[in-house]
Amino acid sequence: MFENKQRRQLPEIIREIVESYFLDEPTNQCFDAGLPSDSAVVGVLKTLRAVLFAGYAGHNIDKNNIQFHLADHIYVLYERLSEQIYRSFRHDCRRSDFICDHCQELAETKTVEFLARVPHLRKRLSLDVQAAYDGDPAAKSFDEIISSYPGLNAVTIYRIAHELHRLGVPLMPRMMTEYAHSTTGIDIHPGGKIGDSFFIDHGTGVVIGETTVIGKSVKLYQGVTLGALSFPKDETGKVIRNTKRHPTIEDDVVIYSGATILGGETVIGRGSVIGGNVWITHSIPPYTKVTLETPKMIYQEAAAK
Amino acid sequence: MFENKQRRQLPEIIREIVESYFLDEPTNQCFDAGLPSDSAVVGVLKTLRAVLFAGYAGHNIDKNNIQFHLADHIYVLYERLSEQIYRSFRHDCRRSDFICDHCQELAETKTVEFLARVPHLRKRLSLDVQAAYDGDPAAKSFDEIISSYPGLNAVTIYRIAHELHRLGVPLMPRMMTEYAHSTTGIDIHPGGKIGDSFFIDHGTGVVIGETTVIGKSVKLYQGVTLGALSFPKDETGKVIRNTKRHPTIEDDVVIYSGATILGGETVIGRGSVIGGNVWITHSIPPYTKVTLETPKMIYQEAAAK
Amino acid sequence: MFENKQRRQLPEIIREIVESYFLDEPTNQCFDAGLPSDSAVVGVLKTLRAVLFAGYAGHNIDKNNIQFHLADHIYVLYERLSEQIYRSFRHDCRRSDFICDHCQELAETKTVEFLARVPHLRKRLSLDVQAAYDGDPAAKSFDEIISSYPGLNAVTIYRIAHELHRLGVPLMPRMMTEYAHSTTGIDIHPGGKIGDSFFIDHGTGVVIGETTVIGKSVKLYQGVTLGALSFPKDETGKVIRNTKRHPTIEDDVVIYSGATILGGETVIGRGSVIGGNVWITHSIPPYTKVTLETPKMIYQEAAAK
Repeated sequence: MFENKQRRQLPEIIREIVESYFLDEPTNQCFDAGLPSDSAVVGVLKTLRAVLFAGYAGHNIDKNNIQFHLADHIYVLYERLSEQIYRSFRHDCRRSDFICDHCQELAETKTVEFLARVPHLRKRLSLDVQAAYDGDPAAKSFDEIISSYPGLNAVTIYRIAHELHRLGVPLMPRMMTEYAHSTTGIDIHPGGKIGDSFFIDHGTGVVIGETTVIGKSVKLYQGVTLGALSFPKDETGKVIRNTKRHPTIEDDVVIYSGATILGGETVIGRGSVIGGNVWITHSIPPYTKVTLETPKMIYQEAAAK
Repeated sequence: MFENKQRRQLPEIIREIVESYFLDEPTNQCFDAGLPSDSAVVGVLKTLRAVLFAGYAGHNIDKNNIQFHLADHIYVLYERLSEQIYRSFRHDCRRSDFICDHCQELAETKTVEFLARVPHLRKRLSLDVQAAYDGDPAAKSFDEIISSYPGLNAVTIYRIAHELHRLGVPLMPRMMTEYAHSTTGIDIHPGGKIGDSFFIDHGTGVVIGETTVIGKSVKLYQGVTLGALSFPKDETGKVIRNTKRHPTIEDDVVIYSGATILGGETVIGRGSVIGGNVWITHSIPPYTKVTLETPKMIYQEAAAK
Repeated sequence: MFENKQRRQLPEIIREIVESYFLDEPTNQCFDAGLPSDSAVVGVLKTLRAVLFAGYAGHNIDKNNIQFHLADHIYVLYERLSEQIYRSFRHDCRRSDFICDHCQELAETKTVEFLARVPHLRKRLSLDVQAAYDGDPAAKSFDEIISSYPGLNAVTIYRIAHELHRLGVPLMPRMMTEYAHSTTGIDIHPGGKIGDSFFIDHGTGVVIGETTVIGKSVKLYQGVTLGALSFPKDETGKVIRNTKRHPTIEDDVVIYSGATILGGETVIGRGSVIGGNVWITHSIPPYTKVTLETPKMIYQEAAAK
């Protein structure tokens, strides 16, 4: 395109944008940071899916080719995952003013530790698939659940991210669960602890905070919040980080849609059932069913169209 | 990359992952399954969009080239859609221990039946576009609705998936509506029945269950659940599938944000208006306006910052 | 593939679909329209992200290469953004039966005006990043917020779209915020006015309507609706557009999850705190804390499994 009067203004605009990067602002920490990249992290998750649920991502798997399929994917994962883990460690090193002399080796070690956990992850995900089948009358087959249930998708990514979080990998686990949030509407912090046979139905709007603890065979519906009640602040008025701020949910609890359970000392006892839209900020004993008293409704005539 | 001590552990890890696929687990049904692929299903939906709403996907359409545009897309669709329908039928055959001797022909027949319904689908989607325009003062034009309304996007994918569901195609319709759910936050089961001139505004968090029946000119806002009250179980404690578990909404009903309507015998009568956050588990007569009695609110002074 | 009996039906099907485009329907306005394309608009947003938050999209940025990085991206943006702005103006021209003799130049002028605002946008986004860090105890660093907070992502896209809306660009701003909605569950109309230091935590289900006005240092949680109370209709029964239908939120207000605030004359006074699930349709004075009276709950024994 020929040079017009609009285009001639671009060099000056570029100069001003460059300058804005040399001011002291929260968005200017990018120099030499080599952060993990969203698209690489999403790529890692897709490859992991092809390992955890071989055959559900467009590949035709049989008993002869599965070894080659898995081997190919694991070698690719080793390279790509260790690169993103390296970037995550390096980022933290840099923030703490350490010199990063071991980040590369650490990343490779952690990658291998993570990959060695894949059979264990597969076992846990099998329990989650079974829980979805048992918990939803609309489920026609395990395959339908693996192919199309957002709850399983979010829990799969959470379980991956939680393993990496447990291995001490910074930053990337949160990017992973945020990808799950963006595709499913289910927001699980990688720091949360979630037991076996977990099922979230529909799921849009579910929030599970960083210090939540969930037992076995728990079932949640859409719009459930397991959140913080309020944030303690220190004497300078800054929020205190790293305290237990989110609830504990014991085994065999069911929480219906739109319920909100808040507070780090709140415990929902084993076998309890929490009704839709209930708002709870204190502990509930085991085997208790909590429902809202039916609110008064007003019935009037509606105008015909 | 040279062989380091981390990388040397990969063959053993791969061996263990392969082994995990030979245990008896819900995630191990992939052998020789040839399941439909998410990305192929999403590709089919994008091509269908270019057929249903020509000109809204980056192509410049005029009265001369529209025939070539549509013909190109239909031939591509025929191949790709019949491949995914074939995989869906074959999957079900295999699950039922039938020998799959007619799945290919059946898939091609169903694909043609589906494509023959495109003019009908376009007519129904026109009514949905008009309903969105009439129902939202922020809508500036039909083009804005087609380009950017998540409600229309979700309903378009639902109407496609419902046609395929009606034609008896397993698995894929659910993958389609789950794609709509992931992009819009609106979760409509392909089995639901929805009449003409349907409009969902904003839409995040909407759930419409498998056995829901919705009449004409119904309008829903974000966060509305049309769900199941509870699941009847058989004598062995397993949930019973294939019963009507979700409500019936008659013509000209408006349901405001966050309302929850549950149960297979619940009928919301024609012309009724259901207020925000209302929770309903029983039928409502025609032309009734149901609102929550204003709950008591507590007003206190908030500390100044 | 050889010609089978299914495939032989395609020409007739294509003929019928083509015909459906020559009826008088809301979906048939595509001829010669040259509408902006979703994928091009998403591409523009990704490139803008690499300009606004250099280093967070997989590029390694240092003090030497940042100038080249930004210059490259700005020249690409100039071409691509002006093309989509051109299509947006041309679309509106055509709808208004104007002859489009200046749309190209207008598009280039507006593109340059927009790009000149990038340093200003970066300053405002820095305040939003700081607000997220101050408001969330789970936030470990500014980088984590920029990499993975859906609230920041939605607000970034809103601030871009609002600038374009302010410059009078039709259609495309709404496509941009709808892309944000689809990735974050946060639905902000580009016409809304939002002050500095804005933070949305979690965010799924948030709706901020077209004529909302929000002050400085406001914080929202998931599921908050700032919406319209009802739509005034004119004497012919059509909804009236272009009135203030959505609330005003003054500085330093916090609104907890699931709260709904409706109506164009509703003002939430400075420093107020609105509790979870509160439903408000009238103004609230400054420094007021509004909470629901704890609803009566029913506690019963739940059957042990």
